[in-house]
Amino acid sequence: MSTDTPISRFPVADPAGLPADLAERYADVQERSGFLPNVFAALAWRPDEARAFFAMHDALMDKDTPGLSTGERELIVVATSAANGCAYCVVAHGAIARIRMRDPNLADLVAVDWRKAPLDDRQRTVLDVAVRLATDPAAVTPEDLDRLRAHGLTEDDVWDVGAITAFFALSNRLAHFAAIPPNPEFHLLGRLPR
Amino acid sequence: MSTDTPISRFPVADPAGLPADLAERYADVQERSGFLPNVFAALAWRPDEARAFFAMHDALMDKDTPGLSTGERELIVVATSAANGCAYCVVAHGAIARIRMRDPNLADLVAVDWRKAPLDDRQRTVLDVAVRLATDPAAVTPEDLDRLRAHGLTEDDVWDVGAITAFFALSNRLAHFAAIPPNPEFHLLGRLPR
Amino acid sequence: MSTDTPISRFPVADPAGLPADLAERYADVQERSGFLPNVFAALAWRPDEARAFFAMHDALMDKDTPGLSTGERELIVVATSAANGCAYCVVAHGAIARIRMRDPNLADLVAVDWRKAPLDDRQRTVLDVAVRLATDPAAVTPEDLDRLRAHGLTEDDVWDVGAITAFFALSNRLAHFAAIPPNPEFHLLGRLPR
Amino acid sequence: MSTDTPISRFPVADPAGLPADLAERYADVQERSGFLPNVFAALAWRPDEARAFFAMHDALMDKDTPGLSTGERELIVVATSAANGCAYCVVAHGAIARIRMRDPNLADLVAVDWRKAPLDDRQRTVLDVAVRLATDPAAVTPEDLDRLRAHGLTEDDVWDVGAITAFFALSNRLAHFAAIPPNPEFHLLGRLPR
Amino acid sequence: MSTDTPISRFPVADPAGLPADLAERYADVQERSGFLPNVFAALAWRPDEARAFFAMHDALMDKDTPGLSTGERELIVVATSAANGCAYCVVAHGAIARIRMRDPNLADLVAVDWRKAPLDDRQRTVLDVAVRLATDPAAVTPEDLDRLRAHGLTEDDVWDVGAITAFFALSNRLAHFAAIPPNPEFHLLGRLPR
Amino acid sequence: MSTDTPISRFPVADPAGLPADLAERYADVQERSGFLPNVFAALAWRPDEARAFFAMHDALMDKDTPGLSTGERELIVVATSAANGCAYCVVAHGAIARIRMRDPNLADLVAVDWRKAPLDDRQRTVLDVAVRLATDPAAVTPEDLDRLRAHGLTEDDVWDVGAITAFFALSNRLAHFAAIPPNPEFHLLGRLPR
Repeated sequence: MSTDTPISRFPVADPAGLPADLAERYADVQERSGFLPNVFAALAWRPDEARAFFAMHDALMDKDTPGLSTGERELIVVATSAANGCAYCVVAHGAIARIRMRDPNLADLVAVDWRKAPLDDRQRTVLDVAVRLATDPAAVTPEDLDRLRAHGLTEDDVWDVGAITAFFALSNRLAHFAAIPPNPEFHLLGRLPR
Repeated sequence: MSTDTPISRFPVADPAGLPADLAERYADVQERSGFLPNVFAALAWRPDEARAFFAMHDALMDKDTPGLSTGERELIVVATSAANGCAYCVVAHGAIARIRMRDPNLADLVAVDWRKAPLDDRQRTVLDVAVRLATDPAAVTPEDLDRLRAHGLTEDDVWDVGAITAFFALSNRLAHFAAIPPNPEFHLLGRLPR
Repeated sequence: MSTDTPISRFPVADPAGLPADLAERYADVQERSGFLPNVFAALAWRPDEARAFFAMHDALMDKDTPGLSTGERELIVVATSAANGCAYCVVAHGAIARIRMRDPNLADLVAVDWRKAPLDDRQRTVLDVAVRLATDPAAVTPEDLDRLRAHGLTEDDVWDVGAITAFFALSNRLAHFAAIPPNPEFHLLGRLPR
Repeated sequence: MSTDTPISRFPVADPAGLPADLAERYADVQERSGFLPNVFAALAWRPDEARAFFAMHDALMDKDTPGLSTGERELIVVATSAANGCAYCVVAHGAIARIRMRDPNLADLVAVDWRKAPLDDRQRTVLDVAVRLATDPAAVTPEDLDRLRAHGLTEDDVWDVGAITAFFALSNRLAHFAAIPPNPEFHLLGRLPR
Repeated sequence: MSTDTPISRFPVADPAGLPADLAERYADVQERSGFLPNVFAALAWRPDEARAFFAMHDALMDKDTPGLSTGERELIVVATSAANGCAYCVVAHGAIARIRMRDPNLADLVAVDWRKAPLDDRQRTVLDVAVRLATDPAAVTPEDLDRLRAHGLTEDDVWDVGAITAFFALSNRLAHFAAIPPNPEFHLLGRLPR
Repeated sequence: MSTDTPISRFPVADPAGLPADLAERYADVQERSGFLPNVFAALAWRPDEARAFFAMHDALMDKDTPGLSTGERELIVVATSAANGCAYCVVAHGAIARIRMRDPNLADLVAVDWRKAPLDDRQRTVLDVAVRLATDPAAVTPEDLDRLRAHGLTEDDVWDVGAITAFFALSNRLAHFAAIPPNPEFHLLGRLPR
């Protein structure tokens, strides 16, 4: 049923017409994933924004540090996107979180109620600060940042907590505005043992 | 990881000590599901409440009418439980919704953003009224009920929309208060073709 | 003026047609109260739900323990029903609270602003946790339950705080959905010295 | 129990020391009511504010017009003060509303859920606009004022709807800040036939 | 463009027809300011309310105490009026705050995010309590008042924090209801060195 | 006073160490503005994010179309950043809005209460949709986009309304998280006739 949902409320450009740098990136993600995630298709009509969007994404999401693993970065996306009611980001990044956390169930729990999800104290503090920044940004205090530092996050890690949350505040709103549905493939990814 | 989470913040009674009528029901659900859903275990120390709880559940959830199918009843649970941030109910009833709607993805979408989920007008109106009753009950108007009637729901069906929502307002709060986690088995149920 | 308000937006069944066990209960409450509270009339068309509803009610509301008296249980109903804007429950259970607390004014104060009502610390903590569970259920923490235990509530008492709140989350929503008005008799009950 | 609650968190001046004009007003209300409402006592240490406060009150509350009766003015106070959780104003003005509306029950219903209270369309529109101004003042539109005019309210009546709401936005906050409890006498006033 | 906005949604009386005491006050403010602030014009058709309004204003705003300077009183107005979205009060009292605080930028910062504005601890506590009283009045606690006292505010100063907030809860709602725009002159006042 | 506020809670890199493309951009803005806006300084320690951030900014903010002028794009920033309580963006983009709209007062009004600001219907609809996307993104409907199209916005213009709002949802949260204060120079820009 959901396969009939359009990819966007706006024109969907043919990726074949993209500038070379973007065309390469699109081809790469299509090959690695086996499908083109809809956010790529939805952004194709706006190459400058697409380029900036994916550059910002890569700068924040692909780092694996002791204070903030790639899987934990995805959990920030899941928790804050759920607070914003963004189905695209919860489903797509829930899939990536399952794979990167090597846990088939945790992302589902974080999406509905991160406070009771089976997380350690560091992870819980990260999500607490991230969700506050997502939903009530003026309420984040210097003490919130200090709590992250006390759990061993470096200055770079702390910034990343804020910047990932901020980037998906953008991403969630684009997905809502254009009504981008998650690709059906995401729902099952990472649920079965390999 | 999530398997170590306790079933409840309160004493968990041995189902073997239940009164006969409840013992039979517990054995039956265990046999049909292959596991005992945690809400059963968590309620076992309070047999009178357990009996009333499951009686109310069965009176509302097991009817299949043209105006409100069993699968649609589960979608009411998913949407309103998500509004209440109840992981137990979203995950457990998401599984039942997948099975009863014969759709592996719809419940995931309803849980995050029912407004953009691929639903027909009748289904969308049902969830609109149910979520309003769940989150801002004083705001439900006579016109809301008339909208349901205009989509072909009988008086019984309309009542059921309200009563299911009301019953899970109870259920969500019990699950939050006792911190009942969903059984891990629920996450994968109904996702794979049979 | 309020006597012309219908008892429900749904069919109101003649209690004479109820199954024997319910008929007896209805006759009993009518005799003891001198009138049939409207929630009984409104539920009569749904005997299975009525039976479960009153069984749940009795399991939670009729216990008098050192940690949670019957009057204090009614105050939970008044405070949480007021948070949900439910006139039926605030007026009807306000009357019962006046009688059981032997205080003609306290329920009125709890209904509008429980935080400034003349309560002791234990009572105030009970209402604090109950109102949080009613209005923001995901925000209840293990520490909230510990605060109740620190005031001498047993495990059963603590559960009852949550279960009463949960049950009236259901009851308030049914009363809103069916638009059940309080019987006029409730307004004056317990206000005059006997 | 509630009789031990202090009248204010601030100094309570002896009315005997008031300037002559205020002393006369205080004596008058004491004689007519049989007791001195606590808001008078709480304001006595600030004669200039007390004078302005009661002058504003009288300019708004004592007019009886076809579009807005004195009783309906009290219902605005009850509904908006309930939205602000102000026990002093709900209880005290609930009593006056019972007397002026010659209805022992209506104010109780308006206090909890004005939307389902037995009101006519004009009264309901008045409370709708007033409660919006009380709780979300930027959301009041020119159309809201036109709806009042369409129900026969004059320009003066419409202004009074806004000004009464605005005055009790002040009054509710003073009562909260100073923690002024309602006098016990208010609870029973207007409940018994005379 | 904004000069075409009407002064009020209600009749605007000619100040020349005011009672003598008010006429004098209006003439005085016009002379001192160089223009008649629109709130004066908007209230002119209601002399009794205008008199009470300005009396209350003067009793609260013109005192300069060690615990609460006249400039800080204006900052309370700016912060709470911003929380209420009242352009008249934010712009007009922002101008007065610039002059009285001898700071051309602080009021702009307080209007958008008082929590990060460059304030000392006493000022920050004053705004914290005031904004809570403005937006969630039932949540103000005795401890909030004690925090103000601990910063050296006298009983009179503490009362003034509450009373100024309460008075502008009224003023903001009148300005919203009548749609009173700020006079254009206010925007530039206090921005340039004299 | 505000000049002592640090530029960021995170390390502030020397722009001299930036990659050549960014160094050129920083030098350019410094020369045109006469000062380096603090958001540039705060982002300098993260060149990849800075590059993506300014690329996204330029793709959205520098277009002047009949449906959405550069000044109106700034008003979207002012209105949505005010809803998020972001002082940096309200003050900085308020200044740019004053210049681009050639109106010294409008941005101040939009920042506090865009609904009563002197805007035409098209502008008001743009801000209505933008503020909804900023504060309650799941509530934006296809009809909201149609309302924009009905006012003559092209598909590109409509997307820009959403994308600008989304980009500043990111920007506001970065500014809050790093506590970036507006440069003092912004407060007076565009207020005086040239």
